[in-house]
Order: sequence, then structure tokens, then C-alpha cells
Amino acid sequence: MSSELDNSVDEQAARGRPFSMGSVSRFRQPHSVEQSLAPYQVASARAYARVLNEKSLISDEVLTKVLSFLAELEEMLSRGESFLTPEDMDIYSGLERKLDENLGPASNILRMGLSPNDHFACDIRLWMKDETLASMQLLLDLRTVVLALAEAHRDVVMPGYSHMQPASPELLAHWWLASASRFARDFRRLADCFARIDLCPLGAGAFAGSHQPIDRVKLAEHLGFAGVLENSLDAVTDRDSVVELSTCANLVAVHISQMATELLLWATQEFGYVRLPRAFSYRTRNFPQKRNPEPLEVLRSRSAQMTGRLGQFLCELQGIPISYSHDLQESLPGLLEVMENLRFILELTSVVLPAMIFDTTRMEERAGVDLANAGNVMDYLIERNFEPDKASKIVEGLMKYCRQRSKHFIDLTRGEWQEFSPAFDDEIYRYITASTATEIMDSLGGTAHLQVDEALRRGREELGQDRDWLSERSGKKPKS
Amino acid sequence: MSSELDNSVDEQAARGRPFSMGSVSRFRQPHSVEQSLAPYQVASARAYARVLNEKSLISDEVLTKVLSFLAELEEMLSRGESFLTPEDMDIYSGLERKLDENLGPASNILRMGLSPNDHFACDIRLWMKDETLASMQLLLDLRTVVLALAEAHRDVVMPGYSHMQPASPELLAHWWLASASRFARDFRRLADCFARIDLCPLGAGAFAGSHQPIDRVKLAEHLGFAGVLENSLDAVTDRDSVVELSTCANLVAVHISQMATELLLWATQEFGYVRLPRAFSYRTRNFPQKRNPEPLEVLRSRSAQMTGRLGQFLCELQGIPISYSHDLQESLPGLLEVMENLRFILELTSVVLPAMIFDTTRMEERAGVDLANAGNVMDYLIERNFEPDKASKIVEGLMKYCRQRSKHFIDLTRGEWQEFSPAFDDEIYRYITASTATEIMDSLGGTAHLQVDEALRRGREELGQDRDWLSERSGKKPKS
Amino acid sequence: MSSELDNSVDEQAARGRPFSMGSVSRFRQPHSVEQSLAPYQVASARAYARVLNEKSLISDEVLTKVLSFLAELEEMLSRGESFLTPEDMDIYSGLERKLDENLGPASNILRMGLSPNDHFACDIRLWMKDETLASMQLLLDLRTVVLALAEAHRDVVMPGYSHMQPASPELLAHWWLASASRFARDFRRLADCFARIDLCPLGAGAFAGSHQPIDRVKLAEHLGFAGVLENSLDAVTDRDSVVELSTCANLVAVHISQMATELLLWATQEFGYVRLPRAFSYRTRNFPQKRNPEPLEVLRSRSAQMTGRLGQFLCELQGIPISYSHDLQESLPGLLEVMENLRFILELTSVVLPAMIFDTTRMEERAGVDLANAGNVMDYLIERNFEPDKASKIVEGLMKYCRQRSKHFIDLTRGEWQEFSPAFDDEIYRYITASTATEIMDSLGGTAHLQVDEALRRGREELGQDRDWLSERSGKKPKS
Amino acid sequence: MSSELDNSVDEQAARGRPFSMGSVSRFRQPHSVEQSLAPYQVASARAYARVLNEKSLISDEVLTKVLSFLAELEEMLSRGESFLTPEDMDIYSGLERKLDENLGPASNILRMGLSPNDHFACDIRLWMKDETLASMQLLLDLRTVVLALAEAHRDVVMPGYSHMQPASPELLAHWWLASASRFARDFRRLADCFARIDLCPLGAGAFAGSHQPIDRVKLAEHLGFAGVLENSLDAVTDRDSVVELSTCANLVAVHISQMATELLLWATQEFGYVRLPRAFSYRTRNFPQKRNPEPLEVLRSRSAQMTGRLGQFLCELQGIPISYSHDLQESLPGLLEVMENLRFILELTSVVLPAMIFDTTRMEERAGVDLANAGNVMDYLIERNFEPDKASKIVEGLMKYCRQRSKHFIDLTRGEWQEFSPAFDDEIYRYITASTATEIMDSLGGTAHLQVDEALRRGREELGQDRDWLSERSGKKPKS
Repeated sequence: MSSELDNSVDEQAARGRPFSMGSVSRFRQPHSVEQSLAPYQVASARAYARVLNEKSLISDEVLTKVLSFLAELEEMLSRGESFLTPEDMDIYSGLERKLDENLGPASNILRMGLSPNDHFACDIRLWMKDETLASMQLLLDLRTVVLALAEAHRDVVMPGYSHMQPASPELLAHWWLASASRFARDFRRLADCFARIDLCPLGAGAFAGSHQPIDRVKLAEHLGFAGVLENSLDAVTDRDSVVELSTCANLVAVHISQMATELLLWATQEFGYVRLPRAFSYRTRNFPQKRNPEPLEVLRSRSAQMTGRLGQFLCELQGIPISYSHDLQESLPGLLEVMENLRFILELTSVVLPAMIFDTTRMEERAGVDLANAGNVMDYLIERNFEPDKASKIVEGLMKYCRQRSKHFIDLTRGEWQEFSPAFDDEIYRYITASTATEIMDSLGGTAHLQVDEALRRGREELGQDRDWLSERSGKKPKS
Repeated sequence: MSSELDNSVDEQAARGRPFSMGSVSRFRQPHSVEQSLAPYQVASARAYARVLNEKSLISDEVLTKVLSFLAELEEMLSRGESFLTPEDMDIYSGLERKLDENLGPASNILRMGLSPNDHFACDIRLWMKDETLASMQLLLDLRTVVLALAEAHRDVVMPGYSHMQPASPELLAHWWLASASRFARDFRRLADCFARIDLCPLGAGAFAGSHQPIDRVKLAEHLGFAGVLENSLDAVTDRDSVVELSTCANLVAVHISQMATELLLWATQEFGYVRLPRAFSYRTRNFPQKRNPEPLEVLRSRSAQMTGRLGQFLCELQGIPISYSHDLQESLPGLLEVMENLRFILELTSVVLPAMIFDTTRMEERAGVDLANAGNVMDYLIERNFEPDKASKIVEGLMKYCRQRSKHFIDLTRGEWQEFSPAFDDEIYRYITASTATEIMDSLGGTAHLQVDEALRRGREELGQDRDWLSERSGKKPKS
Repeated sequence: MSSELDNSVDEQAARGRPFSMGSVSRFRQPHSVEQSLAPYQVASARAYARVLNEKSLISDEVLTKVLSFLAELEEMLSRGESFLTPEDMDIYSGLERKLDENLGPASNILRMGLSPNDHFACDIRLWMKDETLASMQLLLDLRTVVLALAEAHRDVVMPGYSHMQPASPELLAHWWLASASRFARDFRRLADCFARIDLCPLGAGAFAGSHQPIDRVKLAEHLGFAGVLENSLDAVTDRDSVVELSTCANLVAVHISQMATELLLWATQEFGYVRLPRAFSYRTRNFPQKRNPEPLEVLRSRSAQMTGRLGQFLCELQGIPISYSHDLQESLPGLLEVMENLRFILELTSVVLPAMIFDTTRMEERAGVDLANAGNVMDYLIERNFEPDKASKIVEGLMKYCRQRSKHFIDLTRGEWQEFSPAFDDEIYRYITASTATEIMDSLGGTAHLQVDEALRRGREELGQDRDWLSERSGKKPKS
Repeated sequence: MSSELDNSVDEQAARGRPFSMGSVSRFRQPHSVEQSLAPYQVASARAYARVLNEKSLISDEVLTKVLSFLAELEEMLSRGESFLTPEDMDIYSGLERKLDENLGPASNILRMGLSPNDHFACDIRLWMKDETLASMQLLLDLRTVVLALAEAHRDVVMPGYSHMQPASPELLAHWWLASASRFARDFRRLADCFARIDLCPLGAGAFAGSHQPIDRVKLAEHLGFAGVLENSLDAVTDRDSVVELSTCANLVAVHISQMATELLLWATQEFGYVRLPRAFSYRTRNFPQKRNPEPLEVLRSRSAQMTGRLGQFLCELQGIPISYSHDLQESLPGLLEVMENLRFILELTSVVLPAMIFDTTRMEERAGVDLANAGNVMDYLIERNFEPDKASKIVEGLMKYCRQRSKHFIDLTRGEWQEFSPAFDDEIYRYITASTATEIMDSLGGTAHLQVDEALRRGREELGQDRDWLSERSGKKPKS
């Protein structure tokens, strides 16, 4: 059944463009999406030309012509221009056309064992490397902010919560340090992921290898890769890094979401621990008394977008054979979005956090009231070898006594304490005074000052090490 | 802790813009995203002005001024221009500013009980309504294409598969009709979803209702809604339709994916049932013998993008209180993408399917060979009251006999058949001849011609009914 | 390459069991999973036997034998016993074996045009029908609870929130009614979904139809289906309902999650609006002062499990051909889990909500303080034709005045009001008194008593209609 | 509003059980789920008792009593018995009760600074460690199988595919080696993930640290952890590893899915490259000629289940504060399922692959026909400095010539070749003979024998190193 339509589209094809029925030509990614890869494409082509020349597969003269033309294209791209025409199917056929038009087919190094398959696989890795390192830099910036806040809030006591209920006093610094630890872990997870991205697939050809006797190790070096992704079929079809990098990004986003969620809670009138400056909280036309903490709401929910994309990528990869197909290109726009969102939330968080205004007086006040220290009284008794049931009964008695008189533990006299148990001496006040109650938690990683100071020191030390790692790694760029 | 940063951003805020530290101002959706909603925003404002006037809350004179100014904005938008400036926080504050600037605050109908909350909720529903109806139109077009293909292939016999193994002969028309049924079901699912979108939230205010005594039923009528979404808190926070519509879109995409997957199989050299014309299959520079069926690959995998977005939307909605927050706006760019992708795959499928070239001769050939009819021989015996084990042994004997002689069932003489069982008479040839074997499956919905013709008739009838539904529904637009 | 292993497993196969190398035999669903379908499998077989007999394809005598044996199996199942042995590959080969053993192959109605494909497709639909109706019943129960709470809290004023910030007073009843509306919408969405489940695929055979001249319309009637799922290929491969039903379930879960999230907020010490009785809040051994609202936390997060399953189902369906394969059975355990979770959260919510203890005094107190009514003062001025900017300045002046004196609006004298604008008369007290402030929002669906009472009336009316729908639908069971 | 219900449930609570209204008591995980953690819970308790004793916080005598009782419990668990009663809320309150009942409250080490929060966090990590190492062992087994197949198929030439279309010849060994590389990458990804799991949270208390001066470094050593998860708030709330481990599992599943998908294609009658032995392919009662490759279908689709669970876990973690809540326990059943599925697919694949029967003759035949080598003819010309357009025209001419005469390239005489270009000499036969055509692809990682042999050698070497890593790591168990 060869329809009329068929003839008409075949004619179109003969005139150069694949097909163009309304929106249908869109079935390839729009050029704007691919544009992000164009500088990397040029870099890959340059490196490939070099290894061809090193094995005398192209002459020095051809190499010079090619390099100089690629430099022109690079400049064009750096000015924000594109070398594509609407007729180009993608950036790979576009570059081929440009080379043909300008240097003649004889100089078309793209046809000498290179394929759009390994070329694309290489460019997306170069792009992922840059994006990963850029995000890691932003992550270092955020850790710097968080550590500075921890230091600034070293002496602020607040109620520590579990199940959103006050459980026992905690230094606000300790709360910040939890996030500092999470972001440090995120950094190292990204570094592990980076090592698996940092392998060069170029030279794998369509999937069976290159028929040119090129040196793939040299090729990887020219491009600043740490090594070669060897098996040529794996090299062009592996998309593990897209999934792994998205997971790393998503975990950063989850950590930010949880932080934002707690800050939103603290920003309610009822908690009243924190407020956003005008610049970050919108006034609405209807309610002059209100300021909406919208940036925190964005940070709470943006993680979902990455979770969706991660599901998309895994779903795209399932159920296709181990061979190159268009399915492997489908993740590109989504991956661009994930990495843009990652950068965005990192930048926004780094700016919002230090701008927030903390009502530390209110936090400290709340840490000392409402029997929030009952757990510490329990600890006091347990440490003095009381049987738990016995201890529990004593504490409940105390709580009832306080409630009936609208008193806090701290208001009770030594005499009142002793009515409940002779085991209570002045030491009990250390357990229930907000400013000292945190000091009981003095095991490694606990909320006592000694531990918090040590954690701050280690946090800064690790930050320095990670900074070194990053600056060393960031130096390895494709040779220009 | 009121930081320097805080002061600097507060100063910025005082000068009009919320804040603008590099990318951070992006925390609201980019204007380009919201632009899709702008025409609906204007329509909502017009309707609201009308109901205010109907209750004499604004004068006729003010109404005339407002309507005429909104008409100007509408024309601007229809020319592809935007009325926003970079300083506008979103399209709602932008419209407010425009009204203030042009008509003076006294005519700002947006401040009379309307809120960005119900305004946004209304506009996204108006947009969803149009998108849903447009997709339903494309779905009708695709069904028309599929039914035409079923009719064209009414007499083509092919091997029917299960587990990708040939099981028994099937009319190619029957295969097309499966998809026609699926797309008809998709249409009706979208119609059910549409009924839940088609309710007007305008007049719900911020969440507690409008303090103006407006008539919400009239308001809904002006906007072409079928009814009112009553409870004002529900009206501004309900995002069920975003999820439900995405599910409907995703199921269409799954149906197209399965169709494309099977066509990709048929397009292999090894199956050889179908090929794509040049316009839809790319030749690669390295392999002149190859044509890559990339459009089908796109159709196979694009469904994943919708699955990811659906997960995103549900994740965004979980774990927030029943109150308006920015989280409810986060789904907008994703929803735009889902509906654009739905349109795209519907259009692409409608163009690709009729352009494909079927090798019906090869299909028929394969339907008659390789013992593909062994199931029918089983049926023949079972219908003649053979015990299954007995029947099975006879058929296996026949298969072994054929394999050893490289014969197909159809090659066996009456005498050869009778050696295996005297129950075989000439009737057996009807069961094993490709052109008649399908006729055995003559129960409702089966692959016999009688059933296929009846299904075609019903399919066209339903298509007509759905067309009527759609044209009736498409007429109900917001009053201009 | 026929390996040793191959021989060994082929030998095993010859001895009856497919294969059994450690865990590998598990590749079929465990029998316990399939067990849920067994009663439906028996019902399907019974109906099929009847239509065979109606067309004289089996004798009355055989029918009687078959029906009586199926009744025995049914009784066995109702006692919680299974008729499967570990050797049975699945419930379909298990039933076949039982029929062979007990009635002899001649009575094995499963071999007469029936296939495990359409049999499974039918049983999972019968199961989904029952599960859907059972969930709808629980949803009606929950709506009853929510409407009762709305009625009980008809006169409780609380601060209404947006962005978790108090915006304007709201009746607690109005907050409950938002959820009542959502659950009513969920009911009707499930009803639409039910209509698409309620179609009989039995008689579609393996995929090409039944070679027996059975009456599929009759078959559907015997099984209590509303109609026939016609195209036989579609009938055995359609899994739309799995996706659609999961979406419906997930939306219910999202509605419950949002409700639980807000109640968790209200249950904090800082809000103090609500507390859970002991039975629903755990005391921890370390913190005698704490009660953890764990059931609400479960309700907040359980929705995620359904979102994950929904993604799984869509991912399983993408990228397979339109033909029966094992992939279509993979969703069964997940679907069982989704529907069990749906029932669980519905039951838990129905029990937890009425057990909660509301501190309505505190709610009312908070509704009147902290300038929570500033929006209403704005409305007062706007309604009296003040220009918004002017009105805004007046309200800000009032807010500053109150803050400096630690007063609430309600504390200001008529004289104090008039200092800010002569437009303020005694009417202003109606706008700022908690008990009357809600009455301003008197448009349809607003929080004024008139609207809330009307919404309650309509809510109960719809509940009654839905109850009728359900009881009518629940009567249509497979014929025993 | 203290309802009757409330009283009734409070009474229940007073009698010991939290609440039990039908299914509602299920809101905690069923005991069967938690049972997997019980042995780890006992090990954690033992280690904690030891560090308490080391700091003289409990006497040697108490330590001896505790250790001996824990050993009893451990034996009980190893017999498959549970020490829980239905009244126990979870395994942590169950263990507390057992200790109280048997040793008296004085010996209840669980109350001395330990919390269910850090206890659970520790046990799930110990469980994940064992599950990860067990999966890594299975992954090593699978790599061994795949490398053996690569070796066995060292000399089998087959058509290499891209876009499911034959592109150029490839060694079957090269195809296996792609998967060997993927599984090696999976192993190392799991090793990176393991390092982040392998940190001890015990001693973090409820979230603020332990009030006992225990040595957390020693505690980690007793439990076989490589280090301490320091910040106590992070330690009890971090669930990164659940997400990261699930991603690692999912990527293994994706690699297996792609392999299974390609094998399913090869197992079609039309490809005919491979068949499953009887033990792995089911015969259906209706179609004696068919064998359904169901195990491969399971392997194709099981990955979706993990993708769904991954989405669930991320969704559960978003939008909750940084504090312990029940939400953090919700992932347990899903994680158990993911890891069980990972083991299952690894075992199944390791058994199915070597049992498959390859028709290598057919593969080789197909590699030489159908102009599958046209790409190599292109390469031949390009290498001889033909301009691509010129080369392309020559190859197309050859293809047309062959098609018209139903010849393959290999059938053409030297004279026929020279008619198309004098550049063709006998060397061309090396490019188009299946057995030599692969040899052209001789760059690193290509399909030439030299490269394949080297890859095999490296593959085995890495396997050995990974085996060493695993056996070293597997030795580090909690002290008994």
C-alpha cells in the first residue's frame, strides 16, 4: 500500500529535508535543546582530528584546516549563535554539512570511523561533566553558608523535635550541622558518580568499534577524560550516568526540601521562630498582614520534578535491546531540566538561608517551657539506677504537679523536687535549664557544645578537602 | 540575625522588584510558561467584570471601560505579544498593574473579591478544557486513519502472535481494530475527565469565598463552564484534573507505544512485514543499506515522559496542607509539556501509519507456514470430541512428520492426514488454509470476516457519535 | 550449544515441573498472590460451562457434573483452602488438572475455546469490580464521618490559612466540607472507572476469539457484567483499568494525605488545635511528655506507595507489542497492594477523625487575634469605594498602631477607628469579630453559615444518591 | 469533642494494645515485615550492652545475663520463630518487653540512652549491608556466566544491529562483553553505595545523641561497621542509602531487561537465533507448536517494579521536616521487595542464559547476506580516500546490482567488483566475508578478535579483583 501521502513525503525527502508535516518535523529534539551540546561536539571533533593525524590518517595540512575551521565554529557558538539551519536533522548532520561546505568532503573527518552514536555519547558526557562540577561548586557554596549559620547559632538552644513534637533541647547549630553532613555526603556521592561519567566513549563508532587504527587512550586524554569506556557496544548505549546523576541531584533536592519544610513550619505565626525578609516573602493584595514564604515552598516541592524525570529515564531504558536507537536520545531535554533545576535550588537556598531572620529568643524560651525537658528528667533518674517504670511514675507525677500549677520544671524549688524523690539534688537543674540541658548529650555527634564544636571543625576541614578535589578536577578540560 | 544581605534585598524590594540575585529571580515560573494562560486570564477577568456589573457592584460605564481595555489586551496577545514587564512577578500582578496604569485603581475589578488563587485555578481549567478538546479532535483523526487501514487490510491474513510467537492466523484488520477500540476507550475516558474539568472555580476568592455578592452560576455560564466548583477552599486547591488528565494522556501514549513497538518488530529485516518510506526513515552516513525507523522509536518511548510527569504531579500534591501554596503552581510547566507531547504523538502517528508500506504477501505466506496452524488442528479435534491428551498426541505426530519432511500442513494429502486419524476429512483444509483459518474464530469480537465487518461498522458509528459530542462541546467558549 | 544444564533442566521438565533451581521457580507469581483470583476463576468457569451448554456444545449431564464440582472447589476456597499443589504452574493449570483428575478430560470445559489469557483477563476484572465497590463503600462511610464532623463544627470559627499563614476567619465546618467535596468527586471518578472495568473479556480466547459458537453477551450476563469487551485482541491485552483504578485510588490517598498533613500541623504544641487520644498516639519510653501522632503520619505518606505502583504499571505496559505476554501479569501483586492500601487508609481515616479532640476554644481565640482579620478590614474599605492604595495605607496604619500597643483590632474603640478614617462605623465590628467575620463570605461555596448549611444539605443529598448507586451496582454478582 | 469512640479506644489502650478496630491495627508494618530486621536488632543490642559495660555503665554480671539472653533470642530467630506477640507494637517494644520479663527492668539496656530511632536506623543498615553483599555475590556469579558465554561464542559472527536493523558484523562474544562491562560497572556502583551504608548510626539516641558517655567508635567496630555516622540528627533520619541502593538495583535490572529484550527478539521464529529449552519455555494447551519464553518476559519487565519503588521512596522523603517520624519507616516493605527482586532476577538470569540454545549457524548465515556488509564496503572506499558522496554512489550501485540478481556481495566476482570501481581488489573480500569482516574493527574495545580476547582477559582479571573485595568485606560481621 504505497499511498499518495507516501509519494509526497518521499518527494520532500528527495529535496533534502526528512519530512515536515506541521508539527511532525519536531520528532527530533528541537535545535535549541541540542544547542547545549554544540560546544562539546566541536571539542570532540577537534580531538578526533588530532588522533587521526597522530596515526597519519589525515595530513598535517588537513588537520590545520580542520582545527582552524572548528575554532571559527566555536567562536560562533560562544557568541550565542547557531550554525544549524532548519533543514539540518540534528547537530551531527549540521556539522557534517558545515565541514563539507567549507572544507570539502575530503576533509570530513566525521566520516572516518566516527558515528553520530559515539559522538553524541561523548558530547553528553562532556556536558554532564561540566554540569556536575558546576553543581558541586554550588554545593560547596551552600555548605559554606550552612556552616557559617551553624557557627552563628552555636549558642542558640531550641526545642528539638521528633514527630513534630518537642522532645528535648538541641542547639540550633546542631540542626544546621545535620544538613551540612547531608550536603557533604551529596558531594562525595556526586564525586563517585563523576568517576563513572569521566570515561571516553569516542572511537566506539556506531557500536562495533572504529575501523581506523586510532589510539582511544590518546583521544580520551585530549578530551580531559580520566579513562576510556572500552567495549564499543556498551560505550554507545550506556546511559547509567543519566540515571545515577539524576539520583544524586534528587537526593540534594530531598535534603533541601526537608530543610525548607521545617523552615516553613518555623515560619508559621504559631511557631514564630523565623521570618523571611520582604524580598523573599510576598505580600498579597488581599491580606496586608500576610507575607507568603513562597521561595521555601518552591524548595519544598521542586524535588518532585526530579523524581518524575528519574522515573522517565528508567522507563525509557527498560525494554529496548542493547543497541543504539532513538530512545537513547529521549532523555536529553529532561536531563537538561534536572541539572538546571539542581543549580537553581542550590543558588536559591544559598541566598535565602542567610537572609532569614531568626527569633532566637523565642526558640530559647520554648526550649525551657512546656515540660519539654521531661525526657532529661527521665535520663537523670535512669542514670541513678531507677527502674524505668519507677522513674516514669515519678516524672508523670512531676508533670501533673506542674500542669495543675501552670509551672515549668525550672520553677520548682529543691524542696518540691525532693517531695517526688530524694534522688533529686541541685544537679537536676543542669538537666532542665535550657542552656545546660543540651550538654548532657555529649557522645560523638551529639548536641553538646563539645561535640558541636568538633563537628564544626571537621565540617570545615572536609569542606577544604572537597574544595581541593574540585579545583583539581575542574582543571581537566578538553584541549582547545 | 538581620544580615547585610537582608537589608540589601529589602531595599531592592522597596524599589519594586521582589529580588534579583542572578538566577534566583527565576523562582517563579518564567513568563513564557505563564504566557499560555494569559488569554484565559483576560477572559476570566471579563466575565468577572460582567457579574460585578450585573449586581451593580460596578457601573455600566466602568464595565464598558474595562471590557474595551481587556479587548485591547486580548488583541495584543493574539499578535503574540506579552503585556508583562520583567518587573511583574507573574501574569496576575502584571494584569493588575496594567489595569491600574490604564484605568486607574477605581476600575481595578481584580481587587473586588477576586484573588490570584481562584483566578489561576480558573485559567488553568479553561486552558485544560481547550487542550483536552484539541487532543480529542486529534484522537478522532487518528481513529479515522486506523479504521481506514483496517478496511484497507480487511482481507490480509497474517500470523497472530502471543508472547511474540506465531499462534494462529489473524486478519490484519483485526489487529488494527484492537487499536481502534483502545482509542475509542481513550476518547470516552477523556470525556469523563473533561466533565470534572468543566467546573468553574472563579468567585472562590483566596479560599473562603468572595465578599462580593456575585452570582457564581452566572459567572460559570459567561465562561462556558458546565457548572460551578462549589466549596471555595476546594475550588482553589483542587488539582485532581491535572492528575486525571495526565493519566488519560499517558494511556493514549501507552496504546501508541505498543502499536509502534509491534510495527518496529515488523519493520526488522527478519520479519519484513512493513517498511517506512524514505521520508520517515533515516539513512545513516555509515550504512547505506540501512533505514532507521526513528519516528516509531520516538512513539515507542515518548510515553515515559508522561509517566514521569504523572509521578511528579502526585508527589507535589502529597504532604501539603489543604490550603493554597506555591506548590500548586509547580505542575504548570510539566502539564504544558504533557499536553504538547500528547498532541505531537497523535499527529505523528496519524501521519506515519498511512505512509507505511506493508508487504502483505509476506504476511500471508508466513501465516500459512511453519505449522502456525497447529492450534487450529487441535481445535478441529477437540470439536470432534477428542480427549485433549489424545488430540495433542496426534498433532505432535503431525508436526514431527512435517518437520522431518520440511512440509507444511497444507502440503499433506487427505491420505496422509488419515494416517494420523480417520477423523480428518476435507474439512481440515478449511482450518489450515490461511485464507479460511481465521473464519473459525466467529464469536463476537473474533477475527472472522463477519465479526471484523461488524466491528468496522460499529467503529464508524461510534466515531460519528463521538464527533457529534466533540463539536457540541467545542462550541461552548468564554463569552467575548 | 546444548549445555549440560540444559539437559538437566529438560529432564526435570519431563518429570512434570517446569524448573526448580532454588528461587528460580518463583518466576511465576507465588500461589498466595494468585489465590485472590481463585474464586473468580471458578465463577468464570461456571459461566463458560453454561454458555457451552446453551449452544449444546456440552450435554446437560456434563454441565451438572461440572457445576457441582466447581461448587465443591468454591466451598474449599471459602474455607481458606487452596486446590493448588506446588507442581501447578499457576491457578489456570491447577484448575485444569483438578478437572482432569475429577471429571476426566472429556468434561474439561477449559479446553473448549477458553484460554488462560481471557480467563485471567476476566478474573482480574471480576476482582477489580469487587474491590472497587468495597472501596466505594468505605469512601461513603468516610464521607458520612466527615459530614458529621462538619455539622458538629458548624459554629467553630478558626483562622483560615493560605501558605500556612493566617489569612481570614473560616468555619471549621467549611474546612471539613472541602474534603467532603473531594471524596464525593473521588466517588464519581471511581464510578466512571467502574464502567470501563465492567466489561466482559471472556470468550476472546487466546486473542483471536473463541472457535466455539458461544454467545458472549449471555456469558457477560451470567457473570454480572454490564457489557462485552469486544475486540478479542484488545480484550486479552487491555490493562487500562489497572492504571485508571490506581489513579483513582491515588487521588483518594492524596486527599487523605493533605488532610492528615494539616491535622499534623494542628496537632503540634505550637498550634495546639487538636490532639489524638491515647489510643492513636504513642508514648515513647524516653519522652513521657510526648505523644506521637503516628497514624496521621502514616496517612500523610502512604499515598507515595500508590504513586510508585502507578509508575510501575505504566512502565510495564510501555514498549511491549499488542499481544499477550507475561508482562501483563506482572502488575497483579502491585495492584493487590494498592487496593489493600486504599481500603486501609479509608478505614483508618474513618476511625481516627472522629476520635480526635479539637480545642475549639483555642481555634476561635486565634481567629480573633494577631490582626488575622486585616483582610476583612481591607474588604470593608474596598466595598466603600476606597481606592486600594488608600485602603492599604489605612490598614497598615491600623496594624502598626495595634502592634505598638499590643492590641487586637477588636480592642479598638469606635473613636480609635475613626482616627484612621471616618468611614469606619459600628459595622466594622461585624468584619473583625471572629463569630461574624466569616459571614461576609456569602457567595456560593463561601464560608458564611448560609452557604455552609446549604453545602451540608447538598452533601447529604449526594451521599444518598451515591449510596443508591452503589447498592444497585453491588447486587450484580456472578450467578452461582 | 471527646466522642464515645474515643473512650472506647482509650480503654483499649489502657488494657495494653494501642487500638484494634478491624484492619486499623495494621497501621504499623505487619510483624512479618519487621521480622527480617529482628536478628540485626539483637546484634545491635548486644553491641550496645558491650559498650555500656566498657564504660562501667552496666556491671559484668548484667552484661553476662544480657548477652546470654540475647543469644537465646538469636537461636529462636534462627529457628524461624518470633518472640513477638500480637500485642507488641513493633519489634522494638517487643524486645523491651522480653528483656523486662526475663531480666527485670534493671537489666534493660534499651533504656540507657538507646532509642527505637537509632536502633531501627542501625538495624536497617546492617540488613542492607548483608543484602548488598549477597546481591554482589550473585552479580559476580552472573558475570562469570556471561564471560563463559563470551568465551564459548568467541568465534561466532552475527549481524550487529542498531535501530534493530543489521548494520555490520559483530562477534557474539562482543555482544556478551557489553553486558559483562555493564555488570562490572554495577558492581563498583554497589561498592560505592556500600561505603555510604557502612556507617553506624547507633548511639545517636532519639536524635540529639546519647546521654550515656558511650564510645561510638567502639560500638561501630563491634558491629562490623567501617565508621560512624556522626551527627545524631542526621544519623536517625538519613535514608539516602535506601534511594541509592534502589537505584543501583534498578540499573542492574535495566541491564538485564535490555539483554532479555534482545534475546526475546532473537527467540522469535523470524529471527530464529536462539531457543529456550523446554524447562524454561512453556507449552500452552491450545498451541502445541508454541513455546513461550516467559522467563525472559519476566526479566524484561521486572525492572519496572523497582522504578516504581524508587519513585515511592523519594516521594516519601520529600516534604517532611528533618526529624524522626513514621514516614521514615514506610519504605521498609518496599525495600525488602526491591532487594528480593534483585536477587531473584540475578539468579534467574544466571540459570537461563547458559541453558539457552543458540543457532550459531543461522547467525553466521545472516551476517553474510542481505547486503549487511554495505557499511564495510563504504569503509573500504573511504579508507582509500574516496570522497564520501562518490563512495556512497558506488555502494548504492553495487546494492542495486545485487538486489536485481538476488546476489549477496560475497557472490560477486573480482570482475564484477571492478566494473564498479578499479579500487576494488581481493582485499575487498576480507571486508565482506563474515568471518573476517569483524576484524576491521580493531581499535580498543572493538569487535575484532584481538580486542575481544583482550577484553575477555581484562574482564576475568577485574572479576578476580572484585571477588577479593567482596570476600574481604563479607568477613566483617557483627561480633557474636
